[in-house]
Amino acid sequence: MDFAATKALFDLPDGVIYLDGNSLGPLPRAAAARLQRTLAEEWGEMLITAWNRAGWMAQPRRLGARIARLIGAEPESVVLGDTLSIKIHQALAAALDLRPDRRKILSDTGNFPTDLYIAQGLIGALGRGHRLVTVPPEQVAAHIDEDTAVVMLTEVDYRTGRRHDMKAITAAAHAAGALTIWDLAHSAGAIEVDLAAAGADFAAGCTYKFLNGGPGAPAFIHVAPRHAEAVRPALSGWLGHAEPFAFEPDYRPGAGIERMRVGTPPVLQMAALEAALDIWDGVDMAALRARSVALSERFIAGVEAVAPALTLASPREPEARGSQVSFRFAEGYAAMQALIARGVIGDFRAPDIMRFGIAPLYIDESDIDTAIAAIGAVMDGREWERPEFRTRAAVT
Amino acid sequence: MDFAATKALFDLPDGVIYLDGNSLGPLPRAAAARLQRTLAEEWGEMLITAWNRAGWMAQPRRLGARIARLIGAEPESVVLGDTLSIKIHQALAAALDLRPDRRKILSDTGNFPTDLYIAQGLIGALGRGHRLVTVPPEQVAAHIDEDTAVVMLTEVDYRTGRRHDMKAITAAAHAAGALTIWDLAHSAGAIEVDLAAAGADFAAGCTYKFLNGGPGAPAFIHVAPRHAEAVRPALSGWLGHAEPFAFEPDYRPGAGIERMRVGTPPVLQMAALEAALDIWDGVDMAALRARSVALSERFIAGVEAVAPALTLASPREPEARGSQVSFRFAEGYAAMQALIARGVIGDFRAPDIMRFGIAPLYIDESDIDTAIAAIGAVMDGREWERPEFRTRAAVT
Repeated sequence: MDFAATKALFDLPDGVIYLDGNSLGPLPRAAAARLQRTLAEEWGEMLITAWNRAGWMAQPRRLGARIARLIGAEPESVVLGDTLSIKIHQALAAALDLRPDRRKILSDTGNFPTDLYIAQGLIGALGRGHRLVTVPPEQVAAHIDEDTAVVMLTEVDYRTGRRHDMKAITAAAHAAGALTIWDLAHSAGAIEVDLAAAGADFAAGCTYKFLNGGPGAPAFIHVAPRHAEAVRPALSGWLGHAEPFAFEPDYRPGAGIERMRVGTPPVLQMAALEAALDIWDGVDMAALRARSVALSERFIAGVEAVAPALTLASPREPEARGSQVSFRFAEGYAAMQALIARGVIGDFRAPDIMRFGIAPLYIDESDIDTAIAAIGAVMDGREWERPEFRTRAAVT
Repeated sequence: MDFAATKALFDLPDGVIYLDGNSLGPLPRAAAARLQRTLAEEWGEMLITAWNRAGWMAQPRRLGARIARLIGAEPESVVLGDTLSIKIHQALAAALDLRPDRRKILSDTGNFPTDLYIAQGLIGALGRGHRLVTVPPEQVAAHIDEDTAVVMLTEVDYRTGRRHDMKAITAAAHAAGALTIWDLAHSAGAIEVDLAAAGADFAAGCTYKFLNGGPGAPAFIHVAPRHAEAVRPALSGWLGHAEPFAFEPDYRPGAGIERMRVGTPPVLQMAALEAALDIWDGVDMAALRARSVALSERFIAGVEAVAPALTLASPREPEARGSQVSFRFAEGYAAMQALIARGVIGDFRAPDIMRFGIAPLYIDESDIDTAIAAIGAVMDGREWERPEFRTRAAVT
């Protein structure tokens, strides 16, 4: 893998080291031309006929198949659409429907809040006595029991980068008759994922983080082929119908994963995402992972050498981490602002987490070394004490 | 209103008369530059900070307020996001929750199928014995009873353009203690809508038809302010949380309409939509409606003169129509293909409806006259009999 070549495919601002691609990936250089083509040649020229002539209608499946390769899923088992919150809702509603006699949804305290909120909203709407049980990440397996309908987890923790053992937890869930939903928000494009080998039942993820699909890029959902025909969609929109353009009065689910489509797909977002996936098509995930680990190890060693006040919040063992490195520091918010002022962009998660995404497609050793030096300078200069870095604004 | 000026703001292909803006509106000339700015100056340069610095996070409310004016809603009562199917689900789940002792969802046979499908999916998921009752459009008021939780209708029929009396039906629903959901897919940007005056409870619509927001542009939802704080969201995503960036473990609904947000909004689609709304900001809806009626009347008279085999499927009285005109013709599919080959783009809905959208922003008298002449030529030449026009493809 030639990662210098992939780096050249991104339009990164001068003087910026971007370690926040785990929140929003940067702009692929080809995205502007791709989007311009969609506007001028497709929307502008073909108008309504572009749904077929430009292939818009099939795009959620076509791009889904390209993402499937990155997450070890069968090509026909992934479709794009909506947002991750909606896709989690679909997966959870389907899983509960497949386990009608069980009432427990098991998750962990490291799950991203929207997954928990979606479960709470669904439980309230269903009104059938389901309960959401959240336990510390390391205790998940021990809490899977005969009442557990589904184990719903984010594989890689958004704060610490701690990674679950997808295969072991899935096996434990199956042994107890439970299903699994894996949120791959911080996995897709970040680490090697093999949904098929793990036997995962459902998965969902977003495409605007490590996949670089652009702000508001659509989410994806995976349903294991063994379940695909058994799923009864709760969000039964017309594009998940067996024949959307027959305009029948009654819903009939489409074949397999097609039924997880809901409404009209976001064509402009898909065009930008396509430009990003053109880069991913050439990426070997094992090579990417090896480089992510090497860069992460270099970053941890460097930061610990120059900034002993920062405490590693991520697991020290590479196998237990995703592709981000987090440190705890009581003044982390202001320290991160100081770092951003120096052109090194990471982000902060309360109460004290400084978070750095390591994306080998556009981050190299030199970037890591520059970031380490900037962290050292912020710490040496106690820059977090400066008033301009202490004002809090909403962060994402 | 200077409609010649608005027409110049759209990039329409040479030689095309576009009468399908009720399906997908055409490209505003300003969209390409607007999108380019979002890519280069916002996503590319600001990266993650654009969520605040470029105002992305607030955009669903800001654009919602601009749409609110077009549909007679309070500025703070509309928010953008997701697709119309999802927004209908949210409105329906909320309405059923507000009327827990009632089991009937009343709709009509003219509703767009996805609204009915969404109701069927929700009923199945809830499993509480709700039932969807669909009656002919003219019988809706007579079927509102004490068990009716919600009357869910599309104001303007997607096939015939027949328009409901929103105010009368809403009053009848309220008299029986029921709520209303108005699907404005074929109303927003097409006719004068006054949700507040009608006392509508919920409304939703899409922005890619008459509003010209682009393929896959986000939907909008309106909740009457009197209900907004009472709604318990079933799709409780993090951006509808009172403090999304506090990352709390438990969902707390945001203030008012904010709670109808779900996940990350589609920033690129919103940029294109903004370019379209820049045009709408200058439009007087009463003037638009008057022109729509004048153009529609001219079209009906002209078509009936040159093509007596076509039967008007839309109501003859302008007040009973939206901004489209439909004709029935047994060979309508092939006739529409022949018409498209002549550069007049309308569309076809089974079994026999030829559908023409009348969008005064970019359609003028000369376009109407050209379309009439083309229809006359297709009919005179029996062009629907040509084999090349009889092959069916999926249409949208």
